Amino acid sequence: MSKVIAIGNYSEADLAKLKETFDPVFLAETTEIGSLDEAARAGITAAAFKGHKPFGAEAMDLLPNLGVIANFGVGYDSINVAAASERGIKVTNTPDVLNDDVADLAVAMLLMCGREMEHASKWARSGSWAEKGEYRLNRKVSGGRAGILGLGRIGRDIAERLVPFKMDLHYWSRSEKETPGWTYHSTPEALAAAVDYLIVATVGGKATEKIVSKEVLEALGPRGILVNISRGSTVDEDALIDALKSGGIYGAGLDVFVNEPRIDPRFYELDNVVIQPHQGSGTVETRAAMGQLQRDNLSAFLAGNDLLTPVN
Amino acid sequence: MSKVIAIGNYSEADLAKLKETFDPVFLAETTEIGSLDEAARAGITAAAFKGHKPFGAEAMDLLPNLGVIANFGVGYDSINVAAASERGIKVTNTPDVLNDDVADLAVAMLLMCGREMEHASKWARSGSWAEKGEYRLNRKVSGGRAGILGLGRIGRDIAERLVPFKMDLHYWSRSEKETPGWTYHSTPEALAAAVDYLIVATVGGKATEKIVSKEVLEALGPRGILVNISRGSTVDEDALIDALKSGGIYGAGLDVFVNEPRIDPRFYELDNVVIQPHQGSGTVETRAAMGQLQRDNLSAFLAGNDLLTPVN
Repeated sequence: MSKVIAIGNYSEADLAKLKETFDPVFLAETTEIGSLDEAARAGITAAAFKGHKPFGAEAMDLLPNLGVIANFGVGYDSINVAAASERGIKVTNTPDVLNDDVADLAVAMLLMCGREMEHASKWARSGSWAEKGEYRLNRKVSGGRAGILGLGRIGRDIAERLVPFKMDLHYWSRSEKETPGWTYHSTPEALAAAVDYLIVATVGGKATEKIVSKEVLEALGPRGILVNISRGSTVDEDALIDALKSGGIYGAGLDVFVNEPRIDPRFYELDNVVIQPHQGSGTVETRAAMGQLQRDNLSAFLAGNDLLTPVN
Repeated sequence: MSKVIAIGNYSEADLAKLKETFDPVFLAETTEIGSLDEAARAGITAAAFKGHKPFGAEAMDLLPNLGVIANFGVGYDSINVAAASERGIKVTNTPDVLNDDVADLAVAMLLMCGREMEHASKWARSGSWAEKGEYRLNRKVSGGRAGILGLGRIGRDIAERLVPFKMDLHYWSRSEKETPGWTYHSTPEALAAAVDYLIVATVGGKATEKIVSKEVLEALGPRGILVNISRGSTVDEDALIDALKSGGIYGAGLDVFVNEPRIDPRFYELDNVVIQPHQGSGTVETRAAMGQLQRDNLSAFLAGNDLLTPVN
């Protein structure tokens, strides 16, 4: 009887490696745990988890001997960590291995919005360049003022990439951090008011819900560009859509959305937003590294060793 | 009678400033010079020039007292500089003020190609994300090997932007340069063979025509991405299109084309190329700075002062 349950939608490569290493019970979602019989559930001590749907207390209670939930991804806001801790369940995630990819995508979306590259691409491909002339002038990006909302490891990787773009760097974080002279702001509003580019790189979850509020977007202003590679929940999407429609902000580059993948359809009608399908960590190399780290955490748990990347 | 002729298609802002400063004779192209009468042509001592069509010996001979051609743009391959020098005509350009913008666009196109961002955008916007699931995995860009073909000022600005992307940096130039440890290659082929990303940042003109040859593209190989922000003439477009079609290279990000704006229509059929409408320096801020530098060169000439940015 298997000790491991693997919940979520894994790539073929990860499915094969999970099977080879743990021969787990595979389920699409936590809601299917109840379909296992009591003996099978009691035998489970470790869970591999990948998904954005909740892994809550109820699901945990169906697995009375569960000792670890190894999350695939750095963000673990789908998992009720407080409930896990109460039950003595450890939670692990896959930090750091995805930082480069996510930071790359953030910088790319910032440049694409500022230089209107999707528009310009359409202008060229539609033949307008040949028939109507040069694409309209847009804005200089280098030398601008960039603000990182949440200066964790990913936020720092984004900031460092912006240094040779001669950006004036600002940040907000719960506490002031050691930086190479980047300007700290004590509130998200103050940060937004100080910059042209606001890049959201904070954790998800309750504490940061709608931290990019109507007020923050107003402070960002008509030349402001919002980039979000964290979680859709960090942004008040109604306020964002209003600001994008009215010119309250200049544009946005978004990899994450509240109801992804069934995102608010009003986004589709906007042409000043770069929409990416939550592909921040979506590279062959990084997803392989994330899968490996998830499995390494499971193996460590099953062998009684220290977990590699625990979050509780 | 005006001493200045302004040839080319200027922005409203530049038109107004040229008029205010020099009250020049405005012409769309050098081919129209012949339509001026002899006295008017003899009165011209300075030319503001903007355009990609040739300014050759014949046009120069129609302006017997021409002393300077002030080019709008860093690339001056449209101007026959040898013919100008023979006639004692100085040529100026507008270097440096556009380096940031062009480097920004080069990095953006590199990231967009590597992370398949136009595809991913379409995947999200078409509803495929909601209906068919995650976008396919693509490739990690950070940590790759990048090669700069032509390590002038723009090439160097591109390389510096790639440093925090943890790129292994290589370059080719006519001679080895002082760098922070970047690897020199003595031929374009050797450079292409050593890298994943080949970024063309050399000058245009005869000496670099089709420097990105079939052989260079073969050396770049199936994982290779070509980025060109220099001149369309630097690339053998037939070989490039073949390589893009056959998978000989992975993709390309192109801001410049041989027959722009009427580019080879085969490019439109390719989905592994990011097409930009030669907008490298196309920002409000930079075009204003370029216009100012062009006018400053004209003013310096007319006042008998040293030219600011002569090229011959």
